[in-house]
Amino acid sequence: MRISALYVVIFYALFSPGVVSATELTIEQRLVQLEQRLNIAEQRTADAEQRANQAEKKLAALAQQTESINKKVVEVNKTNEQKSGVDGVEFNAYARSGLLINSRGKGGRGGPGISPASSLNDDAHIGRLGNEKDNYLELSLGKRMTFNDGSWAHFKTMIADGAKSPDPWIQDNNSHHINIRQLYVEMGGFDEFSGAFDNAYLWAGKRFDRDNFDIHFTDSDIMFLGGTGGGIYDVKLSNALKGNYSVYGRNFGDLGSNHYKDNDIQNLMFTANHFYDNWQLMLTGMAAQGNDDLKDNTSTTGSYALRSDNTAKNGYYAMLAYRDKQQFYGLAKGVSETALQYGEKLGAEARQPGSDGDLTENAKSLRFASYGILPAWQNWEFAPSVIAQHSENRYQDGDRYDWVSFNFRASQALTQHFALLYEASWQYMDLNPNGRRYNSDQGIKTYQPVEGGFYKLTFAPTFKVGDVFDIKARPEIRVFATYMNWDKELDRYAINDDFGSKGFTAGGNWNFGVQAEIWF
Amino acid sequence: MRISALYVVIFYALFSPGVVSATELTIEQRLVQLEQRLNIAEQRTADAEQRANQAEKKLAALAQQTESINKKVVEVNKTNEQKSGVDGVEFNAYARSGLLINSRGKGGRGGPGISPASSLNDDAHIGRLGNEKDNYLELSLGKRMTFNDGSWAHFKTMIADGAKSPDPWIQDNNSHHINIRQLYVEMGGFDEFSGAFDNAYLWAGKRFDRDNFDIHFTDSDIMFLGGTGGGIYDVKLSNALKGNYSVYGRNFGDLGSNHYKDNDIQNLMFTANHFYDNWQLMLTGMAAQGNDDLKDNTSTTGSYALRSDNTAKNGYYAMLAYRDKQQFYGLAKGVSETALQYGEKLGAEARQPGSDGDLTENAKSLRFASYGILPAWQNWEFAPSVIAQHSENRYQDGDRYDWVSFNFRASQALTQHFALLYEASWQYMDLNPNGRRYNSDQGIKTYQPVEGGFYKLTFAPTFKVGDVFDIKARPEIRVFATYMNWDKELDRYAINDDFGSKGFTAGGNWNFGVQAEIWF
Amino acid sequence: MRISALYVVIFYALFSPGVVSATELTIEQRLVQLEQRLNIAEQRTADAEQRANQAEKKLAALAQQTESINKKVVEVNKTNEQKSGVDGVEFNAYARSGLLINSRGKGGRGGPGISPASSLNDDAHIGRLGNEKDNYLELSLGKRMTFNDGSWAHFKTMIADGAKSPDPWIQDNNSHHINIRQLYVEMGGFDEFSGAFDNAYLWAGKRFDRDNFDIHFTDSDIMFLGGTGGGIYDVKLSNALKGNYSVYGRNFGDLGSNHYKDNDIQNLMFTANHFYDNWQLMLTGMAAQGNDDLKDNTSTTGSYALRSDNTAKNGYYAMLAYRDKQQFYGLAKGVSETALQYGEKLGAEARQPGSDGDLTENAKSLRFASYGILPAWQNWEFAPSVIAQHSENRYQDGDRYDWVSFNFRASQALTQHFALLYEASWQYMDLNPNGRRYNSDQGIKTYQPVEGGFYKLTFAPTFKVGDVFDIKARPEIRVFATYMNWDKELDRYAINDDFGSKGFTAGGNWNFGVQAEIWF
Repeated sequence: MRISALYVVIFYALFSPGVVSATELTIEQRLVQLEQRLNIAEQRTADAEQRANQAEKKLAALAQQTESINKKVVEVNKTNEQKSGVDGVEFNAYARSGLLINSRGKGGRGGPGISPASSLNDDAHIGRLGNEKDNYLELSLGKRMTFNDGSWAHFKTMIADGAKSPDPWIQDNNSHHINIRQLYVEMGGFDEFSGAFDNAYLWAGKRFDRDNFDIHFTDSDIMFLGGTGGGIYDVKLSNALKGNYSVYGRNFGDLGSNHYKDNDIQNLMFTANHFYDNWQLMLTGMAAQGNDDLKDNTSTTGSYALRSDNTAKNGYYAMLAYRDKQQFYGLAKGVSETALQYGEKLGAEARQPGSDGDLTENAKSLRFASYGILPAWQNWEFAPSVIAQHSENRYQDGDRYDWVSFNFRASQALTQHFALLYEASWQYMDLNPNGRRYNSDQGIKTYQPVEGGFYKLTFAPTFKVGDVFDIKARPEIRVFATYMNWDKELDRYAINDDFGSKGFTAGGNWNFGVQAEIWF
Repeated sequence: MRISALYVVIFYALFSPGVVSATELTIEQRLVQLEQRLNIAEQRTADAEQRANQAEKKLAALAQQTESINKKVVEVNKTNEQKSGVDGVEFNAYARSGLLINSRGKGGRGGPGISPASSLNDDAHIGRLGNEKDNYLELSLGKRMTFNDGSWAHFKTMIADGAKSPDPWIQDNNSHHINIRQLYVEMGGFDEFSGAFDNAYLWAGKRFDRDNFDIHFTDSDIMFLGGTGGGIYDVKLSNALKGNYSVYGRNFGDLGSNHYKDNDIQNLMFTANHFYDNWQLMLTGMAAQGNDDLKDNTSTTGSYALRSDNTAKNGYYAMLAYRDKQQFYGLAKGVSETALQYGEKLGAEARQPGSDGDLTENAKSLRFASYGILPAWQNWEFAPSVIAQHSENRYQDGDRYDWVSFNFRASQALTQHFALLYEASWQYMDLNPNGRRYNSDQGIKTYQPVEGGFYKLTFAPTFKVGDVFDIKARPEIRVFATYMNWDKELDRYAINDDFGSKGFTAGGNWNFGVQAEIWF
Repeated sequence: MRISALYVVIFYALFSPGVVSATELTIEQRLVQLEQRLNIAEQRTADAEQRANQAEKKLAALAQQTESINKKVVEVNKTNEQKSGVDGVEFNAYARSGLLINSRGKGGRGGPGISPASSLNDDAHIGRLGNEKDNYLELSLGKRMTFNDGSWAHFKTMIADGAKSPDPWIQDNNSHHINIRQLYVEMGGFDEFSGAFDNAYLWAGKRFDRDNFDIHFTDSDIMFLGGTGGGIYDVKLSNALKGNYSVYGRNFGDLGSNHYKDNDIQNLMFTANHFYDNWQLMLTGMAAQGNDDLKDNTSTTGSYALRSDNTAKNGYYAMLAYRDKQQFYGLAKGVSETALQYGEKLGAEARQPGSDGDLTENAKSLRFASYGILPAWQNWEFAPSVIAQHSENRYQDGDRYDWVSFNFRASQALTQHFALLYEASWQYMDLNPNGRRYNSDQGIKTYQPVEGGFYKLTFAPTFKVGDVFDIKARPEIRVFATYMNWDKELDRYAINDDFGSKGFTAGGNWNFGVQAEIWF
């Protein structure tokens, strides 16, 4: 090819048509020129043909190769699709694990629900930072399936365990509780659904309600609706108004699979949630047939308390919430969520509606909860929160329980992976159990009326990855020091709760420790 | 290029050889023509060369690109292989979760094994649709490894939990049972294996036998062989005949790790399964040394019953099955599986061979089981099934237990994602326990001879994804209403079983609920 | 194209320039030749053009296709990255499952910790091959997160279960122990860390220490440090010297969340590990405040033993180890690891430092452990090991426990997937409990001083995949026969341990079985 290209150059140099006009040559010269040019042209044409042949061969090979690559890619894609769509695993977890040691070098007493006010279904929480001693795990495995017609299903199960032992093998099954907390199926994308139901989807099984929300900093649910049942989410009543409708069951009595008893008391809750802009209105009615027949029994909530003899068999509950994911109370960028909750009878448990079977038929509860997250100046972020509750005729006619908890967590990011966390908690309680009784190893005792305050201060140097400026980003690894103290009167509430127990009396208590926390 | 093509057209138009014969021109004319034509030809050849050059460059680039893509695809494939082969997770699950509420608003009584006949190792099942109240999960994680020499291994473990509580945290560990049901390794692809063993593979560990099969609609195993052991699958005895050979162990007595006792009774089962076309023949011999020494003890099956004093220490069992995955009893497209089972002594437990240590040395059982699935006209699918069993000298010499269960489930698909399910069950039992005794909280009692029928009717509007016409496709989310009734005499069988318990006596019982079911 | 190629051939055959010289022809002849040749050349050029056109079209299409494939591959790669980086599951497991049957056809007694010497915190192990009867599973799920700034986090949790029942459903929760053995977070890649801390990373939570190591063949940890705490790994003190610093807590007493008790005794261990070349030096100090107050109680280790009245409340522990992953004791290619361990008071538990709260304040332990793996001639591989321990004043002042265990496992690969495994174990013990007492169902008894030897011989034909020549490659499926015998005096040590129990006395005992073992 190069040779014939050279010929062309030489030929044109010698016989360039523009320089030497053909008409000035003799016929013989012209014929010689023509022959020579024709020889060259033929050679060039042959070369071009050969090159075209080769190019065609290469093209054919390349096309075949490309086709085969394409098949491979399709294969790989299919495999990947099957993995995510058919064989894939959804994996999520929440976990905390750490040590809590008191100033005498023993295991410290702690937990957000440590105060006497928490005897009310473990609701009256204080700050959790530097105040947890359990190894707690929620491990969720799930699967999403999608079908060609646009329909889909989603399966989720959550295995959870809570243990106070720090040991790497826990022989005693009663000191921890590995159990299945969630187990449900969701389904949607039905072309049968139209209008308001266009994007609605169904669920059934055991679950935490999708629209629960909490104050992370005190491990306080603002709303924790859960149980086994079924329902429909995302019914679109208008452009701005969405509704969810579900039924949940919870258990109040012995399952009674034996001996001619029939005390499987189920609390059936019919709940409707409506969302309008940032507003949420939740209405729940409930009925637990036969709950009023379980008299003089130990509490159905797992506490040591005895039940009253006028427990309710139904109830209602309402919550109005304003949930702003963009603004810190309309003042600045941030987050703020606020709820006002009211319930009567079985509905008088305000945090976990329907989970307390000991409530009387005259029980009333009013609860207010609010928290915000404020990215403040420079490297600071603030998270204040408050929960206040008033209950009356709760477990006995004539009882009254009032408490309020303030918590303030602050994060001061020092570098990209290190922050100082501060937490201050204050709780005030005025508890009048009006003769409510409980079991103890010294026989049946009576809860004492108490009134007083509690506070906790924590300082926690913390390493974190991800966004150090986000007070809710995880994982974190922290060391901490916590000081707590309370009014001496609170030690008297009961003989088997934390306050007043040996080595944990009013006057000031330190806890120290290290902890990891993660969720994803 | 286009210009030279134009030249050609113009030239041929002017000097077409077919129109103007070269021989009629003067030499001068012909030479001029030749020169012109030659000029054009040279130009065209030069163009073609340039184009071939470019094509070659492009081809080289493309080849390089294709090569690089190929490398990427190989990389991706390798990564995917590693994922499935080295790091991959096999994830499978079966789950059901829902509420079962009776007409008085309490937790309903239910379950496929609710009738007195089920006191025989929980075998005498009726239809499960709208008749389950547990949250049950089987979660399997596995891994497949393949090696360059063609050998492979497969690991599987199954975590299972069964709980009757609908609560989203189960504090009482005794009310649910999270345990490892399977844990085994399979290995194959050995080039040492040849002839009959060419495609055979080994297994060891704890497992459900690979060739178990069931009647899904009544949660009845036709065959549930399981335990811990080892064996070989897929020995090819001839082109049509395959054999499996395994040993399984099950436990019959206290593990006795303490206090000089030695009562770890293991039932060792040697089992052979042969497959010829649709036929399956299973033969099992078993021996549980020392089982005959466990006298006057509580049942080893977990029931309240007392053991006889002539329990067997060995037994045998045979099953002949015809399993047609293509035909509904040869009548139409569909599925049908049928088995005839016979066992003596420890082999007289027909559903779960070798799992019942209370059988006497004279025990005999004969069982017939069959079901089919028939895609019927249009949107209907039918699934009839029957199990009948006769046992004698089962738990006491002279006892006799006869029962038969018919079940009929029908599915009527109304849309692509919605079907109406119907189920009718009828069971007849004639039970003569001949003085068999059991523990109750009123002391030791005697099972009463009873005879009578039971029926159950269920209607279940059901949402499903995937193939709505397939009665076994899942997931499903159903609501349901179930009515069941039985002969009054059956209430008398025992004082601690379901029939006759408070609120659950003959005369008609309704259950209502919602349930999700999924497997993948 | 083929036609024009034919023209060329014919033309050259007729008018080959080398045969018929152009100069010998008349002008007319030459012109005719020229015309003919020119006609052909034009045709050939046109053909070449057409072919170039087609090639260009194909090239354009191919380029487009290649581009689209490239996009797909990028997509696939991205998906795969997301899977491993963001949504991926780390899945690891260890599992063993099998049957152990004695020569009388009952469940065999077995386990590496079967001899009386194992009453010392289950340390004095003999060979495990053909000597295990549990179904044991460790199932680990984890997640790795990486961030753009180079920081990363790693989460791991391990679910474990140990069960002796071979049954495929274990109803009795007390006969198995499913629990969370590990639950921790690691974090690193901090750009704040520099100098010695450049590659260091943090951890917190519950875990097995990263640098634990064991003798697999006797299921003996050389070092098993574990618990809940936090620390830092891989501090680089010099080019050759690395250090780890951690705090671990373990539990010694009742958690005491009730009834005004405060006996949550935590053993806090402060540990430093330094690595220099193959050398490892571990120093641990520990304190368990209040442990000395727990008098006359049952052992905190879960055994039946009673505590002394002078239990320690602190201790120290040191280990010097030489860990050679390349050489079998410097003699040949292979592996060898050796450790010398010494501890006092709470540190006198040499295998699991800090796990035994029954040690007295005068307790002293010295332990030597070593093993090696030697790929010997041809298809043989040898793994000898030894552990020897002396303890005094361990559980009572004046007691003395001496024992030594030798174990020798050999693997003889017969084919690529089949090997014969042999194991010989010999243990000698001289135990003087000096009046140490224990609970039994016959009341409180006293451990007897005993002295004597034990041996075990096992033959195990084994199938395996992967590398049959690697004695530690898994999975394996084995059948085995084991013979063990011991001095009669050892039967007297206690009335509730294995030796001397009914059917398991000195004089020789056979066990047979099948087992699968896997880790990945």
